Amino acid sequence: MVKIVRFYKFGDADVLQLDELPLSEPDKGEVRLKVEAIGLNRAEVMFRQGQYLEKPESFPATLGYEASGVIDAIGEGVTEFQIGDRVSTIPGFSLKKYGVYGESAIVPVSAVAKYPEKLSPQEGTAIWVQYMTAYGALIEYGQVKAGDFVLISAASSSVGFAAIQITKAAGAVAIATTRGVSKKQMLLDNGADYVIVTNDEDLVTRVMEITNGQGANLIFDPVAGSFLETLANAAAPGATIFEYGALSPEATTFPLFPALQKGLKIQGYTVFEITSDPVKLERAKQYIYDGLDSDKLVPILDRIFPLEQIAEAHRYMESNQQTGKIIVTVP
Amino acid sequence: MVKIVRFYKFGDADVLQLDELPLSEPDKGEVRLKVEAIGLNRAEVMFRQGQYLEKPESFPATLGYEASGVIDAIGEGVTEFQIGDRVSTIPGFSLKKYGVYGESAIVPVSAVAKYPEKLSPQEGTAIWVQYMTAYGALIEYGQVKAGDFVLISAASSSVGFAAIQITKAAGAVAIATTRGVSKKQMLLDNGADYVIVTNDEDLVTRVMEITNGQGANLIFDPVAGSFLETLANAAAPGATIFEYGALSPEATTFPLFPALQKGLKIQGYTVFEITSDPVKLERAKQYIYDGLDSDKLVPILDRIFPLEQIAEAHRYMESNQQTGKIIVTVP
Repeated sequence: MVKIVRFYKFGDADVLQLDELPLSEPDKGEVRLKVEAIGLNRAEVMFRQGQYLEKPESFPATLGYEASGVIDAIGEGVTEFQIGDRVSTIPGFSLKKYGVYGESAIVPVSAVAKYPEKLSPQEGTAIWVQYMTAYGALIEYGQVKAGDFVLISAASSSVGFAAIQITKAAGAVAIATTRGVSKKQMLLDNGADYVIVTNDEDLVTRVMEITNGQGANLIFDPVAGSFLETLANAAAPGATIFEYGALSPEATTFPLFPALQKGLKIQGYTVFEITSDPVKLERAKQYIYDGLDSDKLVPILDRIFPLEQIAEAHRYMESNQQTGKIIVTVP
Repeated sequence: MVKIVRFYKFGDADVLQLDELPLSEPDKGEVRLKVEAIGLNRAEVMFRQGQYLEKPESFPATLGYEASGVIDAIGEGVTEFQIGDRVSTIPGFSLKKYGVYGESAIVPVSAVAKYPEKLSPQEGTAIWVQYMTAYGALIEYGQVKAGDFVLISAASSSVGFAAIQITKAAGAVAIATTRGVSKKQMLLDNGADYVIVTNDEDLVTRVMEITNGQGANLIFDPVAGSFLETLANAAAPGATIFEYGALSPEATTFPLFPALQKGLKIQGYTVFEITSDPVKLERAKQYIYDGLDSDKLVPILDRIFPLEQIAEAHRYMESNQQTGKIIVTVP
């Protein structure tokens, strides 16, 4: 028997429970992991709340995109990996069908990859979602280059830190935003060239000061809502604004006049555009391996919870106190 | 003395008046046209109303982007053209500084081009704004290709017809929308593969029928407002929606969930992105010359008014009865 996290209805973190279930066997094209660590994502909080892009097909539902572990069973036709390989999961599957929160997880073989030996299991589960999400927007689509000004909002999330590191690796300037002053020093210490504390400072004024009146060339934002209008006013002519989340409860206004006057592109984006395309996925993996190898990409971990405290770990994410990746370890 | 159209305050078409003024001389880098025909644009109606992207610096103000005529004076340093050349104007200037409504017009030399001999002056003034606007979105940025489904809203404008012709020239499928049934046959007769009458038909349902459930690959829209949400629902995964106008009086909502789920790009766009970039401008001119030469691009004219009826011509544009370009001729 293994412990698997499931929920029987949408709701707050208390709906998450540990069920004792028989060990499942992988189907054709799947592998099974003995899980060592789990990386938490905002998507899973929203999925648990019934607010995500997709919803469970039935209850009880499993959840979770990211785990690291050791392969302990392989399905028919799987040749790329063998039992004993240390791997972590790439978000290349639907939460309707797969979920990795638990002592054991089955995923499609296309959604696992080895992680560098120098990383711990906790670090190994904190690479694919965050770096692929930021990579897809900033590199694959945004083609960030040296000297660009990249505005990264809600920058203290794991994806935010990933975006800062990718921006710096490209020789561009990372302008991070955070609501309160408490995370400012942490962002500066971890690569941000500038930090704008939006509760205290006018974002547009500060961006224009930093960029000599030009505005930001690339903007990477998970907030949306009325904040998009502010971001459009801070954008340079021809800029692209990537919207990759829906953190704001407000309706999102399209900033028509700045968009027309400056020729702005506002692009809805999720990491699944990368993970569902084998060519883009391969490029992303190579970029991330190279970055980890050269220490330009270094996962930043926040608190670590044991699996029994999965609900507490979700509550902690919802409290927005974290800076970097929240990890759950499996004994 | 020459008659020049000017207005002394923002307002309805009645504010336009014909003032008798001394003939001006072109400055360095400018040319003067003896105007033969003027092409009307929605932008000029909005400029007259004080609703455009830019506003006059003082009153009385001139207006107008498009005229054809014969060069009758050249400023210092102008070598590209000579007196007697038949040319028409490209919208490569600010309405704050230049306006071509009148018997005589001065513009920067970069904003004039010869038009094919086979075109009349009325046709010659109906090419640059409409074809460059549609070219920039569909070809320069959108890279439309054979088999693409292109959704063209408010398709009975001069820019709409230009977009239909450019779509067809690329071997793509032109889906035109119009509010009432009255313009449907005219759109079909002039190249639209499908016409959706939005007062009578559900746009999303029809687009999905036409595209076998895939959606439109490129969408070219001057309406914005709540219509953008509808367009996003009719878009294919990875589609680009070009917003090139602000015809709707409503606030524009950003369609966040469709944008995230389908990875949509929503791009604010004006023709000035093409006319302000010499490389893009040259490509656009060559494309348009080639299209006119091969009869893939054929200007569609609507009513023709004499200069004395400029206010009547504006009122006619605001009535939205036109199909194609409204022309004003100068005796």
